[in-house]
Amino acid sequence: MNSFGRIFRVHIFGESHGESVGMVIDGCPAGLALSAEDLLPDLERRKGGKQKGTTPRQEADYPFFKSGLFNGKTTGAPITILFENNNTRSGDYEKQRSFPRPGHADWVAHQKYGGNEDFRGGGHFSARLTTGLVAAGAIAKKLMSAVNIQAAVTEIGGETDLEKGLQKAIDAKDSVGGIVTCTVDGLPVGLGEPFFDSVESQIAHIAFAIPAVKGIEFGSGFAAATMYGSQHNDAIIDNTGKTATNHAGGIVGGITNGNQLVYRLAIKPTASTPKEQFSLNWETGQQENFSIKGRHDLCVALRAPVIVEAATAVALIDLMLLHQQIKPVVG
Amino acid sequence: MNSFGRIFRVHIFGESHGESVGMVIDGCPAGLALSAEDLLPDLERRKGGKQKGTTPRQEADYPFFKSGLFNGKTTGAPITILFENNNTRSGDYEKQRSFPRPGHADWVAHQKYGGNEDFRGGGHFSARLTTGLVAAGAIAKKLMSAVNIQAAVTEIGGETDLEKGLQKAIDAKDSVGGIVTCTVDGLPVGLGEPFFDSVESQIAHIAFAIPAVKGIEFGSGFAAATMYGSQHNDAIIDNTGKTATNHAGGIVGGITNGNQLVYRLAIKPTASTPKEQFSLNWETGQQENFSIKGRHDLCVALRAPVIVEAATAVALIDLMLLHQQIKPVVG
Amino acid sequence: MNSFGRIFRVHIFGESHGESVGMVIDGCPAGLALSAEDLLPDLERRKGGKQKGTTPRQEADYPFFKSGLFNGKTTGAPITILFENNNTRSGDYEKQRSFPRPGHADWVAHQKYGGNEDFRGGGHFSARLTTGLVAAGAIAKKLMSAVNIQAAVTEIGGETDLEKGLQKAIDAKDSVGGIVTCTVDGLPVGLGEPFFDSVESQIAHIAFAIPAVKGIEFGSGFAAATMYGSQHNDAIIDNTGKTATNHAGGIVGGITNGNQLVYRLAIKPTASTPKEQFSLNWETGQQENFSIKGRHDLCVALRAPVIVEAATAVALIDLMLLHQQIKPVVG
Amino acid sequence: MNSFGRIFRVHIFGESHGESVGMVIDGCPAGLALSAEDLLPDLERRKGGKQKGTTPRQEADYPFFKSGLFNGKTTGAPITILFENNNTRSGDYEKQRSFPRPGHADWVAHQKYGGNEDFRGGGHFSARLTTGLVAAGAIAKKLMSAVNIQAAVTEIGGETDLEKGLQKAIDAKDSVGGIVTCTVDGLPVGLGEPFFDSVESQIAHIAFAIPAVKGIEFGSGFAAATMYGSQHNDAIIDNTGKTATNHAGGIVGGITNGNQLVYRLAIKPTASTPKEQFSLNWETGQQENFSIKGRHDLCVALRAPVIVEAATAVALIDLMLLHQQIKPVVG
Repeated sequence: MNSFGRIFRVHIFGESHGESVGMVIDGCPAGLALSAEDLLPDLERRKGGKQKGTTPRQEADYPFFKSGLFNGKTTGAPITILFENNNTRSGDYEKQRSFPRPGHADWVAHQKYGGNEDFRGGGHFSARLTTGLVAAGAIAKKLMSAVNIQAAVTEIGGETDLEKGLQKAIDAKDSVGGIVTCTVDGLPVGLGEPFFDSVESQIAHIAFAIPAVKGIEFGSGFAAATMYGSQHNDAIIDNTGKTATNHAGGIVGGITNGNQLVYRLAIKPTASTPKEQFSLNWETGQQENFSIKGRHDLCVALRAPVIVEAATAVALIDLMLLHQQIKPVVG
Repeated sequence: MNSFGRIFRVHIFGESHGESVGMVIDGCPAGLALSAEDLLPDLERRKGGKQKGTTPRQEADYPFFKSGLFNGKTTGAPITILFENNNTRSGDYEKQRSFPRPGHADWVAHQKYGGNEDFRGGGHFSARLTTGLVAAGAIAKKLMSAVNIQAAVTEIGGETDLEKGLQKAIDAKDSVGGIVTCTVDGLPVGLGEPFFDSVESQIAHIAFAIPAVKGIEFGSGFAAATMYGSQHNDAIIDNTGKTATNHAGGIVGGITNGNQLVYRLAIKPTASTPKEQFSLNWETGQQENFSIKGRHDLCVALRAPVIVEAATAVALIDLMLLHQQIKPVVG
Repeated sequence: MNSFGRIFRVHIFGESHGESVGMVIDGCPAGLALSAEDLLPDLERRKGGKQKGTTPRQEADYPFFKSGLFNGKTTGAPITILFENNNTRSGDYEKQRSFPRPGHADWVAHQKYGGNEDFRGGGHFSARLTTGLVAAGAIAKKLMSAVNIQAAVTEIGGETDLEKGLQKAIDAKDSVGGIVTCTVDGLPVGLGEPFFDSVESQIAHIAFAIPAVKGIEFGSGFAAATMYGSQHNDAIIDNTGKTATNHAGGIVGGITNGNQLVYRLAIKPTASTPKEQFSLNWETGQQENFSIKGRHDLCVALRAPVIVEAATAVALIDLMLLHQQIKPVVG
Repeated sequence: MNSFGRIFRVHIFGESHGESVGMVIDGCPAGLALSAEDLLPDLERRKGGKQKGTTPRQEADYPFFKSGLFNGKTTGAPITILFENNNTRSGDYEKQRSFPRPGHADWVAHQKYGGNEDFRGGGHFSARLTTGLVAAGAIAKKLMSAVNIQAAVTEIGGETDLEKGLQKAIDAKDSVGGIVTCTVDGLPVGLGEPFFDSVESQIAHIAFAIPAVKGIEFGSGFAAATMYGSQHNDAIIDNTGKTATNHAGGIVGGITNGNQLVYRLAIKPTASTPKEQFSLNWETGQQENFSIKGRHDLCVALRAPVIVEAATAVALIDLMLLHQQIKPVVG
């Protein structure tokens, strides 16, 4: 389903080259001062075309509120936001229709929806759908003023010197993957549930909703698999739960422990590489060389941080509401 | 919540040293031939005490069916299974009560539940709760006879020679982490949804419900972050969707593509290391040295594979039912 | 939450005098031929101003598809439909702001949302929100071509001669209540679950989402409370499950039995009566006489049938999908 | 699904003549003092055999806690309660197997579950399943000490003199229906949501999970359909929301308004009438006379009040938790 959350429930909809993309939030507390201006900074960060390595396609990405606001505040009723699609060049994609693009959802979508899918620009599978998620995240962040969520690209193409990683891709005329690291400060102790609704489960669930994410690790993550228990265990040093180290990434037994929440995401290289590829032409049934036209990001990881923050905020606000850390009427 | 799944819904309950642990499955199709014997092999695999590096605590782990079976078949009504707890030594834990064990949920549970938690042996947070999950997984596997789920430990303490990794831990008198790799063959194309209910989202959600899991990666996973697009993209080679490589791990756009589903889990070292530790004594409010008594696994990753298979099976059976790949009445 | 359904999930949003009202459907099968024309007949039925006793307010009620359609068919992605609000006279309502209207949600909304609610014309509580539900119902009906859902007003003001009942209200210069009866033919045997997800539970749940509904009864309903078992029991007369009578209204043990599903709804009189009323002025804190201005229905039951059909269709399509009576790709 | 609730989630399971019946509650706050003794009074009320018109079958109905309690308090982990079945006479039912009993689920269960259902004594459809619901209700009631829920039989066989109504049935050697009225005092203003999660929707949903319920009405209910608006509207008389009348039954716009919540349920006559019936013999495919053996209630409405209270309590506690009227750790 295209929704996430138990109390603060986010629904996203739309297609890359259809009428619009957007979202509905159900369960947002009443009384939060909110306007398009609150969303624009994060929406701006999500947009490409500003930095080296991102697509020159620039949607206006202006959030039109269609419901849920009154006198500049949330009403407690569902909030609907629409983004119009107005800078699309579908023609680019029509020509490629005979090649289900490797690394893209073209082929699986065709099978799953019996050929009824909107294939233009990835349709409903497009990363453009994250516009709605970013808007939801901005609202969630504003509700949690004491919580500070920060995501950043920490590696590109295996390089921590990001400029260098990007240059490698430019030189190779290829797209490239990267790592995004997210930290959260200011969380209360006790969010999450043992087992199925652990904080890791919730965050991983929504993180894998972000296109191109192929891995997630909390705290020491995969490195923990190489450690001894005496190294990995975080000694508790006082009655606030502060630990001497933070290999657990702020979550123990699925529950926040009051230390910084830290996780890292593996972002695969943009599937739409400028390089010529060899793959199936489903009209001829043969493998052929082809290349992808259109405007694309060289490294999607570059645009991911604000989406990662949004996903994290959406997961956490729901846990905050479940644990009664935020009231149904705020402000 | 202690439940997972939309149609095939699994609830787990119990405490390590309470009356019992167990589970209820709602939504299991009617007509599946089922008995305790079907569950025993996987339950046996989950048990410790058989192999080097696992705890000598051996519960009988016999599954008592309390509802949902009639004449040796599932009825379509909820299936309840209870496991009795009968080999517990709570005394071991009482003595340690003043130290919230590092790497365990003792401290967060105390905060979250206001001191009402059953703290004996980790209580509800104990890995003993996975007994119910393993039983549910065995049922899910039996429902999907054409699907083959296999998990195995592929690294211990950073060593792919497992014997060597374990010996390092024994020599160090410490616990150690590991990697579990899970593969699934025989899945249909088209399971999963774009975004929030991607197959990765569903599997990651339940995988992080397994105690000690701190990371997950699909296909090339974190290595993808270092790759070029032309390397990572899996060329489709025929109209069945078969790909030349499988860096995506069988999932594209959140949807199964008919290739082998592959993922890896990072398992942290057992929190209960035999080594002496320095941590908070919450009675004195001071940091002190202490050591953990009781019977524990040197490497929990060793017992994880069958749990990982179960979690995978539970996630997949739900998607199979949602996509009408399995009928409400089987057999 | 403003959503209903487990697989075919309908979300409604909007306010009477805000930007728009609308809905999102998640989980609609792909491949259904669909256009605004398919929705217009039911939307037309919902509109007032055509028949004696309904409000002269006439919105255009044209459904703008914002997502989920491509080449005239559903894609399997969420369907978003917006209705613009363009014939509103908020001024009428501003004047009445000091009186929380009896029988309306004004007072509870004010308490629940801390004064942040959009109060104009009932805001989010307005029956105008049912526009989205009617659109969802029209889609659900089209998916279930073999199922025939019919609702009609069968009583007004206690009179089965509807003209007479309405005339009573006109003569009394008052609003009046009524009864709507809904029948469903062509349902398969076996929909619904014992207990919490009985067909009665599902239909009653959504029926009480319709404004002004205050009672529901299936089959003989309240009359059953006065009957003997030998009278009420429906004798099964053949192996298709056909019964000699249908006191059960087509549902036994919460499950459809293949006979006609029948239920009746009690619709209270329109709260906005033309009559002067005596109630609280919350600015003065005193009870005062006041009268309600604006355009209103004399008998809301008159506009209810198409909404009742829609609610029924939405509840049933979800059960049909759960029971695999409809495929994920249709047509 | 056999579960209800979003935060306080109740799952019921079991069969009339199987191993056991029982329930799991997920989401119960920690810290509530609780023991079997707290449940016994309501369980005792549910049992038959004490009053004229109820079945002489008397299960011990002792609640065995299998999880979720520690040191006499709830822990915050799932609470599992089992009731053993030990006073069953399956033989009675085997003989009737060839007649799917009219008014019972025998025939629909057979169709739905492909003949795999446990048919003995109604199996999973038996009213014995309400034992778990009554236990859940007793816990919910204890959590809401300021809320007073009272249900009572107010009509039998159309008579408000209950003794007279019951005598009619005894004289007619037939079973008979009745009305149960439920009132709730002490609720806060603001529970419930507009539309799909109205308080009426929630209560009706769970009320129709009670076997034999065929109708529900809130406040004036069906009588409202015969009233004028000026009669039905409840004038608000002060700033606490108190109304001069209570035709709305304490719910306006789907939201509690602080006045007494009142609703009535229509209970059909016990399907198992002592009278000889004429119905299908599915072995011969012919209609034949047959009579039902076994111990049954003459009027199931007599045992319903405690179940109705439980259902109401379960619906309301969930809304109370959603609206943060009860904390995650109590006591």
